[in-house]
Amino acid sequence: MDNYQRIVYLNGQYMPESQASLPIFDRGLLFADAVYEGFGILDGQIVDFIYHMQRLEQSLAKIAIPMTFTIDEMFAALMQLIEKNNAKNGFLYLHVTRGAGDRAFHYHDGYVPNIFAFTQGEKFSVDAMPPAISLKTAPDLRWARRDIKSTNLLAQVLAKHAAHEAGDYEALMIDQDGFVTESGSSSFFYIKDGDLFVRPVTNEILHGITRQTMLRVAAAMSIRIVEKFYKLDEVLEADEALITASSIYVLPVGKIDANVIGNGAAGPFTMELRKDYLKTARAEFYKPQMS
Amino acid sequence: MDNYQRIVYLNGQYMPESQASLPIFDRGLLFADAVYEGFGILDGQIVDFIYHMQRLEQSLAKIAIPMTFTIDEMFAALMQLIEKNNAKNGFLYLHVTRGAGDRAFHYHDGYVPNIFAFTQGEKFSVDAMPPAISLKTAPDLRWARRDIKSTNLLAQVLAKHAAHEAGDYEALMIDQDGFVTESGSSSFFYIKDGDLFVRPVTNEILHGITRQTMLRVAAAMSIRIVEKFYKLDEVLEADEALITASSIYVLPVGKIDANVIGNGAAGPFTMELRKDYLKTARAEFYKPQMS
Repeated sequence: MDNYQRIVYLNGQYMPESQASLPIFDRGLLFADAVYEGFGILDGQIVDFIYHMQRLEQSLAKIAIPMTFTIDEMFAALMQLIEKNNAKNGFLYLHVTRGAGDRAFHYHDGYVPNIFAFTQGEKFSVDAMPPAISLKTAPDLRWARRDIKSTNLLAQVLAKHAAHEAGDYEALMIDQDGFVTESGSSSFFYIKDGDLFVRPVTNEILHGITRQTMLRVAAAMSIRIVEKFYKLDEVLEADEALITASSIYVLPVGKIDANVIGNGAAGPFTMELRKDYLKTARAEFYKPQMS
Repeated sequence: MDNYQRIVYLNGQYMPESQASLPIFDRGLLFADAVYEGFGILDGQIVDFIYHMQRLEQSLAKIAIPMTFTIDEMFAALMQLIEKNNAKNGFLYLHVTRGAGDRAFHYHDGYVPNIFAFTQGEKFSVDAMPPAISLKTAPDLRWARRDIKSTNLLAQVLAKHAAHEAGDYEALMIDQDGFVTESGSSSFFYIKDGDLFVRPVTNEILHGITRQTMLRVAAAMSIRIVEKFYKLDEVLEADEALITASSIYVLPVGKIDANVIGNGAAGPFTMELRKDYLKTARAEFYKPQMS
């Protein structure tokens, strides 16, 4: 924990982080019966806000947690949180659990969702040249509903911890049949002969929001996008590789295990995608509807 | 929540349930980075205590959460909890998270585990004739490390909720290849021509503690135990079926979806197993070593 006290959001209230807690009977703790979103904070604004909220709405609906707020109410609450923390660039986290009650797997209509949010600092300075990061491959141990952005994240914790222990930034997860699914908490792509290769969205990967906006940016740049299932050997022949996530936007990948990708440095297509992604994000900050 | 206040255990303290909470930054909430055990409480004692604690020790080791207590210390703490709640027969829950800190998937040695425990009432009166329960089949959506008793339980929540909505007591989970894995939060068995059929333990199922003791009881009764992987059609030909779990011990299964098992009532082998399981449990209550 940082030694300053952030202000965090919990069920409509703002409070110092040390005061924000949930009952031990919260189903988020007992069953990981909870979903979340992570947003980039850029220039004190929320990146890709409406798309993240649409995904959150879908995650909630998929596990039948009621959405107890409107998108504009949550926008106002999160913008207040950003202002209270004077957050300029960084990460914003929003978490919704089904609520607390006596321990039983099945649920009922009597639960009241617990909702909290907090800000964190940026991992890489957004306007500086990012480093080319390295990935460590790991078996993809996750459950079958990876399209739901739930807190059932222990598989990713184990994969990302192994990568971190090896000195790598991120994990690259590979399924039982040898196909690359995605990186530990980010979407993965590679570039070959100027084309951008990406795995199609199914229940086997998270439907990345930064991924989606970046693909739109790539299309606007007239980069050809090739959707396909692929194995590691194809990736290792790539000219460039990259990952996207709300906490890091677009980052170049220079190495996977002991294999150098391209020349190991940030590639030109990747840097162009990053630049245009940030331009688009800045052009599209959410404006709530006037009431 | 019940309208009386239980006394719960949290990090060495006892308190009314309404006062027990964990920080929103606990990794149990953020990542389901936590493991747990459930024990039967029988005659005010803890059933299969040492076996549950050995499994907890293994679960902790598998995800590198330090065990910050000895088995006898935890025994004393849990027995105090049982006494404070005057619990005679019911369920005891023990939960260990990696601890709280700034949100990052990888962990480090600086986390201090959060530990809590609570009691709940019994689902079926232990010494009464139990009902023959019904199961509803569901696809097994869980992750690959089902041997770790972690709180990544959303797949089970969804399966058991669907069963509950259909008026069934429990889910019966079936993998992609059509093999029965286990029931939602219990172990599953069937009996055919006097033999007890059971799926071998691998990472694809939880290594049930009640299962393990019940198999020992069955062996002592000279029931032949057949370990095999099996599909639903074999189960539907069974004479009897049963489930085991620490919260219900041994329960007869009378129906799976629309299919009646045997004559639909509690079978004689099952009831014999239940009787001898309870006898063994009562004969084997844990005695801490004298210090």
